[in-house]
Amino acid sequence: MAKLIHTMIRVRELGRSLEFYRDAFGLTESYRLDFPDFALVYLHNAENDFEIELTWNKGREQAYTHGDGYGHVAVAVSELEAERTRFAALGFEPTLVKEFKEGDQLLARYFFVQDPDGYKIEVLEKSGHYV
Amino acid sequence: MAKLIHTMIRVRELGRSLEFYRDAFGLTESYRLDFPDFALVYLHNAENDFEIELTWNKGREQAYTHGDGYGHVAVAVSELEAERTRFAALGFEPTLVKEFKEGDQLLARYFFVQDPDGYKIEVLEKSGHYV
Repeated sequence: MAKLIHTMIRVRELGRSLEFYRDAFGLTESYRLDFPDFALVYLHNAENDFEIELTWNKGREQAYTHGDGYGHVAVAVSELEAERTRFAALGFEPTLVKEFKEGDQLLARYFFVQDPDGYKIEVLEKSGHYV
Repeated sequence: MAKLIHTMIRVRELGRSLEFYRDAFGLTESYRLDFPDFALVYLHNAENDFEIELTWNKGREQAYTHGDGYGHVAVAVSELEAERTRFAALGFEPTLVKEFKEGDQLLARYFFVQDPDGYKIEVLEKSGHYV
């Protein structure tokens, strides 16, 4: 059966992306393939084995475009408010915490943050389906 | 620590997307939130606990746009050629199998396929880093 193993995004400045994913989510480099024109860097942490693949096309100057189809990657964290406060202190400009409800039932609590290239990441409180 | 739990894409016709992800990758619905204007459907299989979230904005008619930033989700499979043959028989139009080498060293064998909304999925042979 097919195993989901990574998602790939293109980034313009590898260093700032590595710093962001490390500081925000504890994701660090597990594997790198480096060529003259491009590099592929895989990011991983101990929570599971799904990875983010950063593609760095060296010399790309214009910002990447995002379209309106792809949405985001989501992470689950134990302490949502504490993470949001930490992100704000790091200058990551997280959105406010939002609650997603159906009637009185709380379905999810989350905020969003953007990486240095403008990819959105949803940070969900570990609860219900989001664990 | 943050756990990567899902990636979200917007799809125009939920039924055809559910069929594609089921038939291609054995991913089936684990959770659904259904509202008058939109639905969120999470897809999962037994290989790991990372999911694909389909957002279906009901009534959306125009195709979603993809930009040039986001790349793809990747899956690893044991039998690459057999999967490619199966995909072709299902009408999924997989690319040819490609080999990614550095000198004589084989780094990866893979093909690509697109889902009904044009999102690319990389199908990698389970080997090396891609397991």
